[in-house]
Amino acid sequence: MFYLIGLGLCDEKDITVRGLETVKGSARVYLEAYTSILMIQKERLEEFYGKDLILADRDMVETESDEILRDADKVDVSLLVVGDPYGATTHTDIVLRARALNIPTRVIHNASIMNAIGACGLQLYNFGQTVSLVFFTNTWKPDSFYDRIAENTNLGMHTLVLLDIKVKEQSEENLARKIYEPPRYMSIPQAVSQLVEVEESRQTGVLHPANTLAMALSRVGGGDEQRIVCGTLDELLAQPADIYGEPLHSLVIVGKRLHHLEVEYAEAYAVDKSNWRRVAQDVYGCALDS
Amino acid sequence: MFYLIGLGLCDEKDITVRGLETVKGSARVYLEAYTSILMIQKERLEEFYGKDLILADRDMVETESDEILRDADKVDVSLLVVGDPYGATTHTDIVLRARALNIPTRVIHNASIMNAIGACGLQLYNFGQTVSLVFFTNTWKPDSFYDRIAENTNLGMHTLVLLDIKVKEQSEENLARKIYEPPRYMSIPQAVSQLVEVEESRQTGVLHPANTLAMALSRVGGGDEQRIVCGTLDELLAQPADIYGEPLHSLVIVGKRLHHLEVEYAEAYAVDKSNWRRVAQDVYGCALDS
Repeated sequence: MFYLIGLGLCDEKDITVRGLETVKGSARVYLEAYTSILMIQKERLEEFYGKDLILADRDMVETESDEILRDADKVDVSLLVVGDPYGATTHTDIVLRARALNIPTRVIHNASIMNAIGACGLQLYNFGQTVSLVFFTNTWKPDSFYDRIAENTNLGMHTLVLLDIKVKEQSEENLARKIYEPPRYMSIPQAVSQLVEVEESRQTGVLHPANTLAMALSRVGGGDEQRIVCGTLDELLAQPADIYGEPLHSLVIVGKRLHHLEVEYAEAYAVDKSNWRRVAQDVYGCALDS
Repeated sequence: MFYLIGLGLCDEKDITVRGLETVKGSARVYLEAYTSILMIQKERLEEFYGKDLILADRDMVETESDEILRDADKVDVSLLVVGDPYGATTHTDIVLRARALNIPTRVIHNASIMNAIGACGLQLYNFGQTVSLVFFTNTWKPDSFYDRIAENTNLGMHTLVLLDIKVKEQSEENLARKIYEPPRYMSIPQAVSQLVEVEESRQTGVLHPANTLAMALSRVGGGDEQRIVCGTLDELLAQPADIYGEPLHSLVIVGKRLHHLEVEYAEAYAVDKSNWRRVAQDVYGCALDS
């Protein structure tokens, strides 16, 4: 059997009991290298599992899937994935390949940012499509996410904005060699400034720096390390960077389908509680107790 | 500390390692009674945890939260919730109450249908808002979900449709006594027939029985018990009920943002593969290899 196993959000103990049993019983266990975005190292996972892990970067999962799937019709082989195997990055390619080879597949689900974002207190029901924000460069500022956010906000829906991660980047002088830059994670201030930059160039009023509410989350599910901060885009931009904690950061653009209990719940995280309530009431039209 | 712990989707082994450790270390452990929608009984959980569980129905969680939270500033108290604590039913009320009592809270996330629905192979990115479908009666047919589906499909987004569950219902003669009807779970054929009924009465063409694609999932994450079946609404309606397996059932209305790999992936589950491809190509405009 070929197992796709979600590791959840933070560390070695976020795997499910079923997932752990499956890892221990597998002949080979691959760890998708995007796990550099887990908050722990491969070695800690290996120690916890009592098992060696084979690092599989995204290229390998895509181009050497037959090696990963080798003998999986006879023995159990597992591929470990941060979050859920059908989260932001799906693994349909390797499942299709397994099917073609008549290898049975099973998925062991776990939390991913796509559902754990509910920790912000906004109803998951009322989230529209999810968008991704990539690092802008001087010459490359892809902004189609803006149209997607517009579609959501026009309907009053919230938008989960996933922030870019750069792993295994190569500098120009190292292009020919297998030397990689340290990983980079987009932070909340950078994300918000890119949103505001696009709004300034588009000028269609999808985002109002002073009147659009947003919630910034980092290390969701990470216990004491988790941070939630909310406010207007302007307010989030004005905070010192360390208020947002360690990466990964995620951002939610708040839509108008807002219940007063949600506003009240999030108020505890607000940069400025009275402004949070004021915007929710006056701009979003949410009826609050005074 | 007050812990809200997600149990995941299926059985006792879907809890995370962290969740299990927390249960074992808690002075009191409550089990939200909606867990009748887990696929296992309370006793099996108790045996697995080596711990007695206190059943807490939805009323108790809402109205007797102070009893649940009693002493949680001094000892650990856990509330177990099917799926993720911030899934379809959020638990913000009890967290707000804990805050008011100065009791620290921690959430241990897990998979819920809101992210595990990705198992159908459609990108979670492209799901719009989620809708709920309740059991129609002769006199009560709430259909606002139709407008929500329209909003999603107009943008090409997929819609997760959560199907009604009735637990602790009382018949008229038993209203005064604490005697409850057996739980009822809406099935795929019933859900699809309600969708078609609303389309027939609204006549605005949001759903086309012969040309709207949908994916039916049951027991997502349940290993051998999981079923995925897809086709047009007409096709799903024409299948024998047992093809869909045991409850819980969930339905996805497929939007037009469809990638040919998604169509290919889902084809394995299609009632009629050639019709699945034909509709994807001719109606949805998805470019497939012939």
